[in-house]
Amino acid sequence: MKPIPVAVLGATGSVGQRFISLLDGHPWFRVVALAASDRSVGQKYSDAARWVLNEPMPDYARDMVVLPANPDSVQAQIVFSALHNEIAKDLEPQFAQAGAAVCSNASSYRREEDVPLLLPEVNGEHVQLVKIQRQQRGWSGCILTNPNCTSTGLTVALKALDDAFGVKKVFAVSMQALSGAGYPGVPSLDIIDNVIPNIRGEEEKVEWEPRKMLGKLKDGKVDFADIQFSAHTNRVAVTDGHTVCVSVGLSASHSADPESAEAVLRAYAAPLSARELPSSPRPAISVRSEPDRPQPRLDRFTGKGMTTVVGRMRRDPILDLKFVVLSHNTIRGAAGGSIYNAELLVNENLL
Amino acid sequence: MKPIPVAVLGATGSVGQRFISLLDGHPWFRVVALAASDRSVGQKYSDAARWVLNEPMPDYARDMVVLPANPDSVQAQIVFSALHNEIAKDLEPQFAQAGAAVCSNASSYRREEDVPLLLPEVNGEHVQLVKIQRQQRGWSGCILTNPNCTSTGLTVALKALDDAFGVKKVFAVSMQALSGAGYPGVPSLDIIDNVIPNIRGEEEKVEWEPRKMLGKLKDGKVDFADIQFSAHTNRVAVTDGHTVCVSVGLSASHSADPESAEAVLRAYAAPLSARELPSSPRPAISVRSEPDRPQPRLDRFTGKGMTTVVGRMRRDPILDLKFVVLSHNTIRGAAGGSIYNAELLVNENLL
Amino acid sequence: MKPIPVAVLGATGSVGQRFISLLDGHPWFRVVALAASDRSVGQKYSDAARWVLNEPMPDYARDMVVLPANPDSVQAQIVFSALHNEIAKDLEPQFAQAGAAVCSNASSYRREEDVPLLLPEVNGEHVQLVKIQRQQRGWSGCILTNPNCTSTGLTVALKALDDAFGVKKVFAVSMQALSGAGYPGVPSLDIIDNVIPNIRGEEEKVEWEPRKMLGKLKDGKVDFADIQFSAHTNRVAVTDGHTVCVSVGLSASHSADPESAEAVLRAYAAPLSARELPSSPRPAISVRSEPDRPQPRLDRFTGKGMTTVVGRMRRDPILDLKFVVLSHNTIRGAAGGSIYNAELLVNENLL
Amino acid sequence: MKPIPVAVLGATGSVGQRFISLLDGHPWFRVVALAASDRSVGQKYSDAARWVLNEPMPDYARDMVVLPANPDSVQAQIVFSALHNEIAKDLEPQFAQAGAAVCSNASSYRREEDVPLLLPEVNGEHVQLVKIQRQQRGWSGCILTNPNCTSTGLTVALKALDDAFGVKKVFAVSMQALSGAGYPGVPSLDIIDNVIPNIRGEEEKVEWEPRKMLGKLKDGKVDFADIQFSAHTNRVAVTDGHTVCVSVGLSASHSADPESAEAVLRAYAAPLSARELPSSPRPAISVRSEPDRPQPRLDRFTGKGMTTVVGRMRRDPILDLKFVVLSHNTIRGAAGGSIYNAELLVNENLL
Repeated sequence: MKPIPVAVLGATGSVGQRFISLLDGHPWFRVVALAASDRSVGQKYSDAARWVLNEPMPDYARDMVVLPANPDSVQAQIVFSALHNEIAKDLEPQFAQAGAAVCSNASSYRREEDVPLLLPEVNGEHVQLVKIQRQQRGWSGCILTNPNCTSTGLTVALKALDDAFGVKKVFAVSMQALSGAGYPGVPSLDIIDNVIPNIRGEEEKVEWEPRKMLGKLKDGKVDFADIQFSAHTNRVAVTDGHTVCVSVGLSASHSADPESAEAVLRAYAAPLSARELPSSPRPAISVRSEPDRPQPRLDRFTGKGMTTVVGRMRRDPILDLKFVVLSHNTIRGAAGGSIYNAELLVNENLL
Repeated sequence: MKPIPVAVLGATGSVGQRFISLLDGHPWFRVVALAASDRSVGQKYSDAARWVLNEPMPDYARDMVVLPANPDSVQAQIVFSALHNEIAKDLEPQFAQAGAAVCSNASSYRREEDVPLLLPEVNGEHVQLVKIQRQQRGWSGCILTNPNCTSTGLTVALKALDDAFGVKKVFAVSMQALSGAGYPGVPSLDIIDNVIPNIRGEEEKVEWEPRKMLGKLKDGKVDFADIQFSAHTNRVAVTDGHTVCVSVGLSASHSADPESAEAVLRAYAAPLSARELPSSPRPAISVRSEPDRPQPRLDRFTGKGMTTVVGRMRRDPILDLKFVVLSHNTIRGAAGGSIYNAELLVNENLL
Repeated sequence: MKPIPVAVLGATGSVGQRFISLLDGHPWFRVVALAASDRSVGQKYSDAARWVLNEPMPDYARDMVVLPANPDSVQAQIVFSALHNEIAKDLEPQFAQAGAAVCSNASSYRREEDVPLLLPEVNGEHVQLVKIQRQQRGWSGCILTNPNCTSTGLTVALKALDDAFGVKKVFAVSMQALSGAGYPGVPSLDIIDNVIPNIRGEEEKVEWEPRKMLGKLKDGKVDFADIQFSAHTNRVAVTDGHTVCVSVGLSASHSADPESAEAVLRAYAAPLSARELPSSPRPAISVRSEPDRPQPRLDRFTGKGMTTVVGRMRRDPILDLKFVVLSHNTIRGAAGGSIYNAELLVNENLL
Repeated sequence: MKPIPVAVLGATGSVGQRFISLLDGHPWFRVVALAASDRSVGQKYSDAARWVLNEPMPDYARDMVVLPANPDSVQAQIVFSALHNEIAKDLEPQFAQAGAAVCSNASSYRREEDVPLLLPEVNGEHVQLVKIQRQQRGWSGCILTNPNCTSTGLTVALKALDDAFGVKKVFAVSMQALSGAGYPGVPSLDIIDNVIPNIRGEEEKVEWEPRKMLGKLKDGKVDFADIQFSAHTNRVAVTDGHTVCVSVGLSASHSADPESAEAVLRAYAAPLSARELPSSPRPAISVRSEPDRPQPRLDRFTGKGMTTVVGRMRRDPILDLKFVVLSHNTIRGAAGGSIYNAELLVNENLL
């Protein structure tokens, strides 16, 4: 297979860096362009980016010259977007129009009816929406979105439980990592010895996004899942990895004891077409039986950061079950998720 | 008024230190004895204790010689107990038998029918249980307990809401400070860049203690409040101050809009007999209107660490309201709480 | 004594907030004006400032309307400047010209020959330079500066040693708090689980400022002390309090054993005119004998944050002595220092 | 080549875990035994160890039964020791007597004349001391030690400079990671928002160990290098990676400008016999040119954690040069160092 040329938009930011790192040595994709804001255009990437990841900047990227983020300058079959929402809103359709498959981490188009909000291991079949999108918008390219980083792990765990027991109500309280706010993001004086009990716009996303992803695709539309959500979102002094405390109410309450729920989570597998892709989480869900896991520092790299980790499954005194979900927010919840989406698109011959 | 002689048991630990600090210059109480485990007995307090508070060790304590923790060695009218639960179980009755009023931070006797579990601004009238306790047990002293540090702030906020709207269901997810685990407590490698999603025994306490405190005293017994609780408890990298995300279901749902709830919380006052004591929180509850408060580092010292701080009051999509509660865990939630209890006991002429 | 009207420039920033907090209830000064950048002008202070201190915003400041930072709008006898250096460079002379005594935390004028770089407990007599300043510049007001926050504690300790033993060489390696970088300052992703081994411009300041302050005032000029300095400056994950590891070479090496050095530090007192001012550190220097002190979290509030804390005095295998110095960077090292300077000016009848 | 059977003593501690992780898939060594204290003996390793590393526990170790740490129970050609010093003192000679090559991370035998204190890229030739050791002690095995984790990176950097310019004086101030204290190690309340300006016994080690390693092997003895050291050691809130600020005085001061020093460091290579071993750092030294590097979070994994990273090379106003050194304390500075030593022993046919 000939490598597919791909580009990264917003390449200097923290999610952009994660894209560059994860695409290093990717078996299908080859990065041919890095684009960023005017300030960086024309510089070598190694000069333009303030690299914030532990792993060193990949060699392939160091000497690439940063391009302007527009379809004339950036030519690639797949375009990974780590753009800010307002900028993404303008630019992503231009790329889709120009023929690129835009795999976006921005929230701008997540709510559009014909745009898949996609977790391949959850709702891989939603990728088919791009056909309708192309028809309706006259694009040769397309836009695919991945959900908010907190919705991500939560939805993977809920999917397994929904299939087995039917999910009706969900309480979710997050303790989110700093990298979710980008760079420079959260000032250190705001978070050392502290918790910030709000993340602007986040609770709303956590309350609706899983309903789209857990919905059924019917007649070219997603029928949102009928589940009630209540979310509290918090920022804590963790570099990477979002932890979510979850309580769920189920249709099949009587059969949903903790042991069965753990078994269901452990057995969960992505749909066939999403199971053996380069970025497929292995396993899709890891279930921890220790009393105090998952923990972000210890468990965020499970399955190279793509696996959703669940622990502390137990009965909930008000609803049915409660548990803890952990997901790496810039890998599974951002750059890795977009790459996985792109792989599914290729695998389904929808590029 | 002649100063009342008081003692601190478990004086070298972190809660013991907080007692010593808060009792410095107390208008009613004078510390006449500090007791601790055998290891420290006979040493000067300043040699025996590894002081961990920001504020310097009070001068009065520096040269006091640490005594063994038994009623023969320690003679005081009020005994503040920062003992570990297993030790408290043995020792506290000995002191009560010997005539001391034991104001305990340990959990050993919280569940006893005739032992008040007391937050003066919530259930001050429960202090009357000591009469029954003395009768039944033949003690001239007594045991008074204060609740777990996470139950504390939560229950104060719930009390105000319960009075106004009737509380039926409570989801509570805590992000708890390190000082709650004592010293040495949580190893640094476990919490830097991390969250620990469990605190042993804590969820159980948070789920039952508020029911006793919100219960009515009838015929010499506490009739537990009929409220369902579900708790998730977490440890985060904060030195002091427990933050709790709360969702509540109410009887009078229709009238409980966020504005009314804030008004109710702001207007809440302790019962008369607990309102003007030296440690009375001023105000009982502080309501913050900013979108991202309360925060432990910024708000834990509200009302000298005795005030319960509530913020982010908003509608809950599943129950009725959701909000955030903050309380200083070693002041209001431990040593300060025990001292406030002792003050109420004195004020009610029950010493 | 009638209260002296004072103003704070740069009132919304982190040092500005510290000024406002420390001036609350000041026995001599009354804050009559708060000024900040255009963005805040016209707003109530409580709306304009994102308050970052633990202690609540003083009531007096809440409803004050933020003024533009110029002498027409701000009329006060003393003006405390927490302005950024570039802005300070323009504005401070305007205030001095208009008759105000500017007590500045900015570095813009520290190097001027006729401007005192002042630590009252070290070189109080340098305040006399304002007479020459007024003469030369034709100002009715004046500019007084306090040194960089890392130079501060270091210089206080060196002064005591210099008086007794003659300081010749100084190695100083700092571990500096986040509040030294202002707000928003250091991004959290840069400092959680990390050290930043450089602070721009800081080493240069630490290497020359102590030489001016330890210099003698002769014929209206400061004769810089003949001491060699080598500094390494680092940022660490501490909110407040700069820790400095120091090794010193002395003229009177033979007499400078650790015990004598500790005695000298303990006995050190500010010059008479600076000893009993409202902000005078009590004591000037605190010497700790524990093997692991001073520590920023435990010791930064010594003497209400105005005292310099020294510990671990021991022999140095290359030079003569080594020790650790701690100083609260936004109190002694910034706002508190400027206020102390202003008090000295008043006490010397130089206002 | 047939795999060499190796064992890990002290396998459940944090350095023991690092050994187990680094030995996973080692091309020459196969772990045949894990030993630990009585408490763990007889348990499966996955039950006995509280795993604290980010990377998951290797599969090979999970089901191994923990053995008692004595030569009867543990039979292996190479024994990696992560034992506490007092225990190591007793046990390591027993293993050496029984024929095993003990590669030890403990400090117990570092000072013995016939025991190599070894960094293969620095003083690989010192490994020859084991011949004398065997002769003198009648052992068929031997003991090899690696230095303290702070001495490690410091000595690698000094070696390159010493070869080129002759090192005479060294000031070293460390900011050390928490993992250096083992587990549970430093209590979180001692280090959040704090610095601890002392590590017991550490300064002494940093002041003498480099002198042995930089010494010449002559007539079967190490002639210590004639260099003066002064060390200050500090603990900071970093999980892994020791940062050291260093100032050096050199014999060839005039030729030692920062550019030459950087060139010398960049060009430094391990002695031939230590250059191409499985654990050889690649490169031996990495030189950073950014103004604020190395940083522990970003640079500790350079060369898989085996490379010494140097940055901020500049002139020192008192001595000649100053710079910053970073080294991963549990990889290069502990387990990885011992493994590298073992590899050199094998390569030199001294097993």
